[in-house]
Amino acid sequence: MSNKTLLLTGFEPFGGEKINPSALAVKEFSGKKINGVEIYTEILPVVHKKCVERTLELINKLDPVAVLNVGQAGGRTHITVEKVAINFLDYTIPDNEGNKPRYIKITEDGQDAYFATIPVEEIVVTIKKSNIPAMLSYSAGTFCCNELFYGVSHYIRKNNLKIANGFIHIPFIYEQAIDSPRPSMPLSTIIEGISIAIDVITKRV
Amino acid sequence: MSNKTLLLTGFEPFGGEKINPSALAVKEFSGKKINGVEIYTEILPVVHKKCVERTLELINKLDPVAVLNVGQAGGRTHITVEKVAINFLDYTIPDNEGNKPRYIKITEDGQDAYFATIPVEEIVVTIKKSNIPAMLSYSAGTFCCNELFYGVSHYIRKNNLKIANGFIHIPFIYEQAIDSPRPSMPLSTIIEGISIAIDVITKRV
Amino acid sequence: MSNKTLLLTGFEPFGGEKINPSALAVKEFSGKKINGVEIYTEILPVVHKKCVERTLELINKLDPVAVLNVGQAGGRTHITVEKVAINFLDYTIPDNEGNKPRYIKITEDGQDAYFATIPVEEIVVTIKKSNIPAMLSYSAGTFCCNELFYGVSHYIRKNNLKIANGFIHIPFIYEQAIDSPRPSMPLSTIIEGISIAIDVITKRV
Amino acid sequence: MSNKTLLLTGFEPFGGEKINPSALAVKEFSGKKINGVEIYTEILPVVHKKCVERTLELINKLDPVAVLNVGQAGGRTHITVEKVAINFLDYTIPDNEGNKPRYIKITEDGQDAYFATIPVEEIVVTIKKSNIPAMLSYSAGTFCCNELFYGVSHYIRKNNLKIANGFIHIPFIYEQAIDSPRPSMPLSTIIEGISIAIDVITKRV
Repeated sequence: MSNKTLLLTGFEPFGGEKINPSALAVKEFSGKKINGVEIYTEILPVVHKKCVERTLELINKLDPVAVLNVGQAGGRTHITVEKVAINFLDYTIPDNEGNKPRYIKITEDGQDAYFATIPVEEIVVTIKKSNIPAMLSYSAGTFCCNELFYGVSHYIRKNNLKIANGFIHIPFIYEQAIDSPRPSMPLSTIIEGISIAIDVITKRV
Repeated sequence: MSNKTLLLTGFEPFGGEKINPSALAVKEFSGKKINGVEIYTEILPVVHKKCVERTLELINKLDPVAVLNVGQAGGRTHITVEKVAINFLDYTIPDNEGNKPRYIKITEDGQDAYFATIPVEEIVVTIKKSNIPAMLSYSAGTFCCNELFYGVSHYIRKNNLKIANGFIHIPFIYEQAIDSPRPSMPLSTIIEGISIAIDVITKRV
Repeated sequence: MSNKTLLLTGFEPFGGEKINPSALAVKEFSGKKINGVEIYTEILPVVHKKCVERTLELINKLDPVAVLNVGQAGGRTHITVEKVAINFLDYTIPDNEGNKPRYIKITEDGQDAYFATIPVEEIVVTIKKSNIPAMLSYSAGTFCCNELFYGVSHYIRKNNLKIANGFIHIPFIYEQAIDSPRPSMPLSTIIEGISIAIDVITKRV
Repeated sequence: MSNKTLLLTGFEPFGGEKINPSALAVKEFSGKKINGVEIYTEILPVVHKKCVERTLELINKLDPVAVLNVGQAGGRTHITVEKVAINFLDYTIPDNEGNKPRYIKITEDGQDAYFATIPVEEIVVTIKKSNIPAMLSYSAGTFCCNELFYGVSHYIRKNNLKIANGFIHIPFIYEQAIDSPRPSMPLSTIIEGISIAIDVITKRV
């Protein structure tokens, strides 16, 4: 029996935050096995191009059956499963190395956009059944998160790889909302939501 | 040694919601003793005048050292400890018996507004220390919640009672946000927040 | 010299609103000529499939150089020029004939998404220069607006037509916010914004 | 016949903004006469204590029949007529001289709060009749605006003056929302709203 791997990524802190809940949540899955699939975790730099390059390296190295990228979407109230990655960047804040690309395509040879190939509707429905607020989202923004999501989606199609991929945006966690009036969720809820998403994905691969 | 009681109230569901998290949270404290103070709980009708009358009856019956009223403030992201009760009603939705008083004073013989007499700042700081998003709020609205908060505040002053009183507004819980994009909190967080508030209040009385 | 036409559409009221500002704004341009291009206006039904069909009929009849669809996006604070149309529908409220398609593709033979082909970045920049709040948007939702935007985008590509197309979402107008605490704009600002968009588009065709 | 004066104040810019729409709007009324009442305008410093002191000086000098203070409430969607001034300060950002008082009373000898004595409900209704989004507000915050509103309210009562007073919070104007996704209004709408408020107030004095 072949060894199956799911590549699960989070991001470093950015935008003045001291933590990134995507990193905290993703680390919880390091080395775990879910439905017979090994979870390989990586925390990516919030840096233009580098976030994608590192992930593509890992895809080549690991030959995963699925890639699930997780990122922080401050201000959202729900765990949001992204439907669409677009071939467009507009960094309204600088990344962690000071890059701020505006109004550019990610690649010249890609489609305008790609849908996630993980079962996003089923993931949302299943998370909600566990009494966790979850929704589909139709925009992953125009920052690193979308760049990574699009970059992975495009690479998989271009190389005809059999990899299901998708992106989950998570809210701030309590620690980040203690001193500001913005929505947040306990980290434990976020970990449970991601766990359900991985369960749905790995049952299918 | 005399028996000390804290009167803790929640509200029935209203406004089309099937549950009211204030009722669910408050019930958890029924019959408990915190810092030697017995917690007496009551779920109040969301009805103009009746919500106040029932509470004043209980104050007369129980002679509590403190009154803490809890209500749902849908849309808020934090547990909010109310600072101010105002002598004004404007029901923008009907109560559970169809009353909809607009632009009226609660009583002709009261001050424009009263501050809570529980230590609101200390409660907020202490809840935040437990990593729970909490804030002061400067408006309890113009519906039943404010009517109750003002009614109790005015009665205590008018009768020179030695009762500390205050009001806590809580967000929707997860169940109420599953199908709508609005902020929510797990019920467990809300119960913990109220528990901390009661601990701070009962240490002082 | 050939007669050039720009097809400009608005929508009927929907979702319980008595007016649709997109219809009010669009009607202002009926019969006008901007940069030598005649503006043909149409108010579309907020009905699944029919909104697209009517527009495709008009495209066939008018052979326009550009199609600009306008719709109401209640809750937005800015005039938002849509970048992306997606091949996906999820009506969270019923349309004006009671249809409520959930989680379906608009067409089986289309790409996941298409970008607008009007110069969206230039339109936003130019509107902003006139001191009108405008932004790009990366999601036209999953209701009629996106269906129309995608339907037109797909038809143009499938038939290799030389038509620039795009979609502008506008906020509520003052009339719609008088009794609810939601963002709004005067109709005059919206008309000015659309006028600038048409000016930018017609200069290029 | 005695000369009647209404004192109308705005504020300097603060909090990183380059303009304060309250100053821009208030200046429009300088030297005007409405319903026989002269409008005296002043732009106040956004500075703890000083904003109140300057206003009380002007009250002593001008002996006005009414005082209307106007301030910016960034993030609000409507012109909001404040109902309640509270005896409490909590500056969550520093004022223009770096002061940041936290959790303090404005004065030891005042009531917890005072209602505006201008006809706030009538002002809101009348502004709305002119198709301008307006609402009552039940919290003027805990910054300079509330300090001024409370300071004036307390001084008038303490000295038994026959002066109607109130506070209007206005949204950002378009200029302030061009590059951020936040609600705004054209300055002309704000000026019209204030004009209606002054008309209602001066008809009564």
